[in-house]
Amino acid sequence: MSRTLENDRLMRALRRETVDRTPVWIMRQAGRYLPEYRALRTRARDFLTLCKTPELACEATLQPIKRFPQLDAAIVFSDILTVPDAMGRGLYFAAGEGPRFERPVRTLRDVRTLHVPDPNDELGYVMSVIAAVRGELGDKLPLIGFAGSPWTVATYMVEGGPSKTHSHIRGMMYSDPDVLHELLEILAQASCIYLAAQIAAGADVVMVFDTWGGTLTPAAYKEFSLRYMEQIVAEIRDVPVVLFTKDGGAWLEAMADTGATALGLDWTTDIGDARRRVGDRVALQGNLDPCVLYAPPEQIRSAVANVLESFGPGNGHVFNLGHGIHPGIDPAHLEALLNAVHELSPAQH
Amino acid sequence: MSRTLENDRLMRALRRETVDRTPVWIMRQAGRYLPEYRALRTRARDFLTLCKTPELACEATLQPIKRFPQLDAAIVFSDILTVPDAMGRGLYFAAGEGPRFERPVRTLRDVRTLHVPDPNDELGYVMSVIAAVRGELGDKLPLIGFAGSPWTVATYMVEGGPSKTHSHIRGMMYSDPDVLHELLEILAQASCIYLAAQIAAGADVVMVFDTWGGTLTPAAYKEFSLRYMEQIVAEIRDVPVVLFTKDGGAWLEAMADTGATALGLDWTTDIGDARRRVGDRVALQGNLDPCVLYAPPEQIRSAVANVLESFGPGNGHVFNLGHGIHPGIDPAHLEALLNAVHELSPAQH
Repeated sequence: MSRTLENDRLMRALRRETVDRTPVWIMRQAGRYLPEYRALRTRARDFLTLCKTPELACEATLQPIKRFPQLDAAIVFSDILTVPDAMGRGLYFAAGEGPRFERPVRTLRDVRTLHVPDPNDELGYVMSVIAAVRGELGDKLPLIGFAGSPWTVATYMVEGGPSKTHSHIRGMMYSDPDVLHELLEILAQASCIYLAAQIAAGADVVMVFDTWGGTLTPAAYKEFSLRYMEQIVAEIRDVPVVLFTKDGGAWLEAMADTGATALGLDWTTDIGDARRRVGDRVALQGNLDPCVLYAPPEQIRSAVANVLESFGPGNGHVFNLGHGIHPGIDPAHLEALLNAVHELSPAQH
Repeated sequence: MSRTLENDRLMRALRRETVDRTPVWIMRQAGRYLPEYRALRTRARDFLTLCKTPELACEATLQPIKRFPQLDAAIVFSDILTVPDAMGRGLYFAAGEGPRFERPVRTLRDVRTLHVPDPNDELGYVMSVIAAVRGELGDKLPLIGFAGSPWTVATYMVEGGPSKTHSHIRGMMYSDPDVLHELLEILAQASCIYLAAQIAAGADVVMVFDTWGGTLTPAAYKEFSLRYMEQIVAEIRDVPVVLFTKDGGAWLEAMADTGATALGLDWTTDIGDARRRVGDRVALQGNLDPCVLYAPPEQIRSAVANVLESFGPGNGHVFNLGHGIHPGIDPAHLEALLNAVHELSPAQH
């Protein structure tokens, strides 16, 4: 699937090859902090409809690329809950809240009703977005596809709505581990074919977002989250795979053992320490605290410098935030971040 | 301040002295999972009034002790936000939500209006609860006093209401670090004299709860959270001090460097690994996943055995959950936990 890209910094950095400067992209770079995104958003009834309307989702994907030529990658505009949505559990987004499912998955009977969605039928709209973006981008920049980790997707499906404690799924983990494993197995299968379809449609890299793996004990993380991400990594042969477990800084060695190409880091781990632990086996992506972007440009520049210096000289760093950019950020502050990476990172290469 | 206690297992374990079995208490052991607490709760207009009515708060403190003779300590029924409440920022608890402040602290001007509350006047009700509990308990069991960490208390004061991202305080940290340090300094002073007053009133141990330190970068944790906890530890000379940073598993060595007597662990760190890292310098308290208590008694017993075995033979372990007990837990399940600690832990001593 590999193509010749005009800007291949991301691909080279993921393979830990030399680059002229550190590539940079930003989690949720297509999002509410952009006024043009907020305008686009009004053209769809709700967030899910935006994701499911390929011309709008394509436009959302390209908005940050058009505004910020400093970006080294696009990421398909979508959501980690497209898979359970296609499984028919009644996903909806209540205004000002997180996702909810009309029919949470709580029992073996619930799990047994689930099917693995056809990525080119029920999830075909995602492939249409990827194809449309690819058509617009040509071979200028790499395009990142993604999925939620089985554990994280299961968390939303089992909880069914907002929860600070995730008591339903973590209770199920101790009471009915076999039921949960059956659910995770279906989600791992669905993720594998979903990501393979994204690659076939034009994604150059895929990323697995494990938002909630960091809420587990070390043993449970390995059994219920990492194991299924490892299954996905083993299936994806053609493109680099980035694994990101939020609050998973303690488990980077085990994450690297999966064979993933790169690990995403949140801001609670020092990227230099992370590199000393695993840096010769995987590339590292991250990890500026998203809240740095509330500060004035000169503080942003100095915080970018700290991350670059902490990683240190050499290959294998993809600059990013440690989590998605917040909706309240001034785009000029993101510009200050991007300019700082462009100006300061060549010294590390 | 040290007294001769009939049951001194907690005190001995905190000093890493020999005990016949591992002492056990439970974070939020006086709480909504107990039907007698829910009945008591109806006798006060709201949660804060319950905290401020010494005879009711004393009764709440003693309820778990009366129901579960297996417990090795009482903890004063109170809240980590008593200090900012006494600072007059309009603390209230909206039904079904977290705490809110009518007047959040956002500017230097706001910070400069704050005063250090007199622990025997504005916070005198807490001392009355401690004295009343001490009167009832006699010297049977140790009584634990507590405060929120300056960083954690500041988080609630600056955010003013529920927040997933803590953008206000973490933005302030990068934009106006001096203002934030001024706030944290006042809170550290207030915490020191508040805890000293609790000790004078009869607390045998004090614990500092740092619920939100784990949301920081390693450098920011040291500068904005740990530094102020260290200041508290340095001031408390007479009784053991337990520090607990939720999601702080990466920083146990630095926490032990403060001179704290013991560290509380959440469930995301393996307690055996933690002991190998810091166990000869501090005692360790924890760290069963609170969600284990949703499982049937036999699984609870086996999960308790795992924690005890992970810590291993020897001194310096105080059994607890890794966070507060959830409101939906069946008290019989907590009883299974307590019995398992009683039955299984003597083999480690």
